[in-house]
Amino acid sequence: VGPEVLSLWKSKSTFTSFGVFFLQMGWGDLGAFGEPSKETPNLDQMASEGMLFLDFYTANPLCSPSRAALLTGRLPVRNGFYTTNAHARNAYTPQDIVGGIPDSELLLPELLKKAGYVNKIIGKWHLGHRPQFHPLKHGFDEWFGSPNCHFGPFDNRALPNIPVYRDWEMIGRYYEDFKIDLKTGEANLTQIYLQEALDFISKQQASQQPFFLYWAIDATHAPVYASKQFLGTSQRGLYGDAVREIDDSIGKILKHLQKLGISENTFVFFTSDNGAALISAPKQGGSNGRFLCGKQTTFEGGMREPAIAWWPGHIPAGGVSHQLGNVMDLFTTSLSLAGLEPPSDRQIDGIDLLPAILQGKLIDRPIFYYRGNEMMAVRVGLYKAHYWTWSNSWEEYGKGIDFCPGQNVSGVTTHTQEEHTTLPLLFHLGRDPGEKYPLSFASDEYQRAMERISVTVQQHKATMVPGQPQLNVCDKAVMNWSPPGCEKLGKCLKPPKSDPKKCFWPH
Amino acid sequence: VGPEVLSLWKSKSTFTSFGVFFLQMGWGDLGAFGEPSKETPNLDQMASEGMLFLDFYTANPLCSPSRAALLTGRLPVRNGFYTTNAHARNAYTPQDIVGGIPDSELLLPELLKKAGYVNKIIGKWHLGHRPQFHPLKHGFDEWFGSPNCHFGPFDNRALPNIPVYRDWEMIGRYYEDFKIDLKTGEANLTQIYLQEALDFISKQQASQQPFFLYWAIDATHAPVYASKQFLGTSQRGLYGDAVREIDDSIGKILKHLQKLGISENTFVFFTSDNGAALISAPKQGGSNGRFLCGKQTTFEGGMREPAIAWWPGHIPAGGVSHQLGNVMDLFTTSLSLAGLEPPSDRQIDGIDLLPAILQGKLIDRPIFYYRGNEMMAVRVGLYKAHYWTWSNSWEEYGKGIDFCPGQNVSGVTTHTQEEHTTLPLLFHLGRDPGEKYPLSFASDEYQRAMERISVTVQQHKATMVPGQPQLNVCDKAVMNWSPPGCEKLGKCLKPPKSDPKKCFWPH
Repeated sequence: VGPEVLSLWKSKSTFTSFGVFFLQMGWGDLGAFGEPSKETPNLDQMASEGMLFLDFYTANPLCSPSRAALLTGRLPVRNGFYTTNAHARNAYTPQDIVGGIPDSELLLPELLKKAGYVNKIIGKWHLGHRPQFHPLKHGFDEWFGSPNCHFGPFDNRALPNIPVYRDWEMIGRYYEDFKIDLKTGEANLTQIYLQEALDFISKQQASQQPFFLYWAIDATHAPVYASKQFLGTSQRGLYGDAVREIDDSIGKILKHLQKLGISENTFVFFTSDNGAALISAPKQGGSNGRFLCGKQTTFEGGMREPAIAWWPGHIPAGGVSHQLGNVMDLFTTSLSLAGLEPPSDRQIDGIDLLPAILQGKLIDRPIFYYRGNEMMAVRVGLYKAHYWTWSNSWEEYGKGIDFCPGQNVSGVTTHTQEEHTTLPLLFHLGRDPGEKYPLSFASDEYQRAMERISVTVQQHKATMVPGQPQLNVCDKAVMNWSPPGCEKLGKCLKPPKSDPKKCFWPH
Repeated sequence: VGPEVLSLWKSKSTFTSFGVFFLQMGWGDLGAFGEPSKETPNLDQMASEGMLFLDFYTANPLCSPSRAALLTGRLPVRNGFYTTNAHARNAYTPQDIVGGIPDSELLLPELLKKAGYVNKIIGKWHLGHRPQFHPLKHGFDEWFGSPNCHFGPFDNRALPNIPVYRDWEMIGRYYEDFKIDLKTGEANLTQIYLQEALDFISKQQASQQPFFLYWAIDATHAPVYASKQFLGTSQRGLYGDAVREIDDSIGKILKHLQKLGISENTFVFFTSDNGAALISAPKQGGSNGRFLCGKQTTFEGGMREPAIAWWPGHIPAGGVSHQLGNVMDLFTTSLSLAGLEPPSDRQIDGIDLLPAILQGKLIDRPIFYYRGNEMMAVRVGLYKAHYWTWSNSWEEYGKGIDFCPGQNVSGVTTHTQEEHTTLPLLFHLGRDPGEKYPLSFASDEYQRAMERISVTVQQHKATMVPGQPQLNVCDKAVMNWSPPGCEKLGKCLKPPKSDPKKCFWPH
């Protein structure tokens, strides 16, 4: 949750990988993707110097599972980042979650470490906040950021404020030591995270060590914030201010790489972990362009993401790719750049994108859209078949929670879970990227497309071995009461008695 | 209706104007504006070499009035291109329309002629097809194209097929001499119109005469067509094939100007006469990006248009402008480029865009959104106030005619004409380009914005002198039965007895 940068750099070698993940930055938030205010000059320039992916997806319409998928190269249903508490539910890692990234999963930084990389995460981890899930126990060498979203402020009684870590220890808490002013929207966190990135890159360049930098800041996640210098500068309000600051920061990071002379050794990828959260619109919500609905849904607005690959001297400038891509591909692609093989003892869902990026090839592969352990939809070529449709429940909708504001496609944006497994709803995303016009079941086109899709789905389901679900159990006792380092700061809080329960996932 | 190019070129002078008007090409149809298939490399390149306008509007959500506005620099309610047969109705020039462009109106080519320009229209005229409305009687020196849309085929009994003119005379009819295959979607008309443009430019360059070329082709208007070489080449279906062919043609025209060495003397503008027609979607309909609704409506999807200015050596490459622009500005801007003053004996609504284009200035001016003689909405700065809302009637909607498919904003996309004149619905188009979140009437922001808007509207209404409505009377006797030149071709048809009636305008 938050922009994240993967950065791999190998001295005297030919590459680096360095990917940005923006939490909730939607497909339509970039000027290059048609945002009418066109306020992302640095990202637009990154695209014009690199390659724009138009058909790139995240692995889940929610942040934690997408982040777990990016770092493991595996679908959340395999790596355990899902729930079985109810049918087809989105789940993440709130403060009371008991689970987190299993030790059995192999994370990208763990693998890169063996090839001599120094790995740093800046920003939101979101793969579990209990000690065994700490990023430095899963391959990262350095961490500056928080384990959870910057929700708050809390009273440190019912809920503790979210800690900010430097490496192994907490160095303060949001709203206490790291200010976020919810009234004005002011917080200088993005500037801090930017400086962390610049310093890390300088250090690595000086020591000639290859690096992987995962820049996972979360200024565009509600509650949205920006630094004083960016407040009020966007046509789009506070959300736009945050986007502008992130855009500016990315421009500075890329320029820093160029100034240090390592841009041609640094592979940089920018993308997002889920579609824009339309429930936060218009004040704190982004744009998914013309795609249907947003975060939390398996419509295009929930899972199609802006994506840019940048690697001067290697990727032809101004390239455009229709390769169906997925955040999980960054795992496999990064390993490929590092000269490593992906693990062979488990199913890896990511593919190596280098043939698409460097040679313009198109690799035929499906995209799966999950909620929990239910495959809601699949894309094969330009066709997308919905096996289940659901936006959210009538009950939630009645409370004003709307994942598709202003949009209503009869029989598609349903408020009850609708099963279409015997006769999936089929859309042609070229003619109908907004998923408004299901193909006629009786048409030849439907028959032909579904024949191919059915085979893909059968193969997928036949070989699917779900991991142990990590997001089923919640317990207030596990919250961030006393993170390591709290003693030095006098910030340890007393946890309540353990009372594990099934987590409640409403959508 | 159809793409149109304004081209002014003056030998040994510094300029030319040359604008493309795409009928029903929506804001979201260009790669540069975020169309997910990104299939307009030539228009995208035109934008990267020129200036992209993000806040550019047409004068009406329908073709004829927009075209009349472009050529007169005046709102349709002033130049007569509207109806008073019913409240707030869109009207155009079907075959049985009695009216057309009044002699009292001064058209851009009439004015340019006095400065030595040779003026040509290629494509659809749409300002009336009776003899007194012929384009060569209104300033054009040459014409190749048709007076009406390429609807058909007709049986030449109830309705005649639409004639195609070369200059003064008909040289054939659509579906007869100029084939359009509705089954396959094949027609080579765009190629013919392209060749006409290339030939005209070559001739003008050879004779060193300044020119104004108005390229108004209509391949993206239903029934959509494309040449054989483009059929099936787009991800988007037949509509996308047509877009690709137009994009390719524009690329060829721009390259032709460069090859002839006159690109630095040629000011070229690309825009559209109304938003994409969503009733034709998905097979024949374009995209208005994330804007609300489409053609026929005064929401952003009906009137915000893609727009690009191109003038190598003068306009800085890669420029982006938030100037509120309007097709009527092309009238005033072209006159300015030609060293001419706009007429002083009448109200001109267009402004000179050169300060915005050449010096990056932002000129404060409102945008008015009309249906018939009703001002439905106004934009001032980033605020848009709706004084009336209407998509279309329940009766039409019940028949499946939907100008906002998949979109439904409660109280905004209304199926009855809703008056809001005492308390207009107000939107902030920066935070909410999709017009989904009306501002609270009680908010300070609403009060402040409406104070300014009210003054603008009062001034506008106080000085408004509507022209004689031209689109009220229809008569089957005036259809294209016997256009000049029909005798030579043996294609004269016998008109029925005159029976003038009020035209029926359903929306």
